[in-house]
Amino acid sequence: MTSDATPALDPAVAERLKRDDNGLVAAIIQQHDTREVLMLGWMDDEALRRTLTEGRVTFWSRSRGEYWRKGDTSGHVQHVKGVALDCDGDALLVQVDQVGAACHTGSRTCFDGRDLPVVTDESVTDECVTTDGDKAALEGDARG
Amino acid sequence: MTSDATPALDPAVAERLKRDDNGLVAAIIQQHDTREVLMLGWMDDEALRRTLTEGRVTFWSRSRGEYWRKGDTSGHVQHVKGVALDCDGDALLVQVDQVGAACHTGSRTCFDGRDLPVVTDESVTDECVTTDGDKAALEGDARG
Repeated sequence: MTSDATPALDPAVAERLKRDDNGLVAAIIQQHDTREVLMLGWMDDEALRRTLTEGRVTFWSRSRGEYWRKGDTSGHVQHVKGVALDCDGDALLVQVDQVGAACHTGSRTCFDGRDLPVVTDESVTDECVTTDGDKAALEGDARG
Repeated sequence: MTSDATPALDPAVAERLKRDDNGLVAAIIQQHDTREVLMLGWMDDEALRRTLTEGRVTFWSRSRGEYWRKGDTSGHVQHVKGVALDCDGDALLVQVDQVGAACHTGSRTCFDGRDLPVVTDESVTDECVTTDGDKAALEGDARG
């Protein structure tokens, strides 16, 4: 960090980000040990800087237009374990230790109980089974 | 499905989507059994309709401006196992069985080997350990 008054995101990281029109990248939040995908949030450069340096996850709230450090009001803190940026710079994978529920509705993840009706491989095998080894995989359950 | 010539996304699903200014929602792709997060892509209503009904994952390519069914050129097919929509309708979690590499660079996931420098809980425990049970969790390794 330089002696500048305002801390900034590491330029080596900032130059790798491919931000959307609102200056944001998507942040996938995953429980580090069970690998549950807990939620998806949004970060600008400053939210990412705080996340990388404070040990806690900070998002940019698109609806409220403000920074939001997960758990400050709910107690459902996300302790940062690791952060990776994807190959094209528009998505982050944040490994956390989640305290309590990740979802504001009280469910553990924001996806729990929200399955959409889907046609899985089992019903379209004649189209999809084209690679060695896939048949065995298709014997598994429909939802891992 | 009705007898309309052009198939459309189930209206019960469509009305739950909170699309961005470009009509897109984020789609997190996860290997269904190991729970690896493989990549993040983007879907409009039609890409989601195809994904829910064809047994294969289709994205909307923001850079190329076209639909893109994963694996059609690379062979690295994503067989759909399940799809869930998050609590506020702007993110999908797609469980797949991934054939080969998910990333166009040849790595298994788009996040492999792309860790950012991060200060984890271990170095800021006096600020972050505020909840019973967290201390035990903090004894784990830095990256799950």
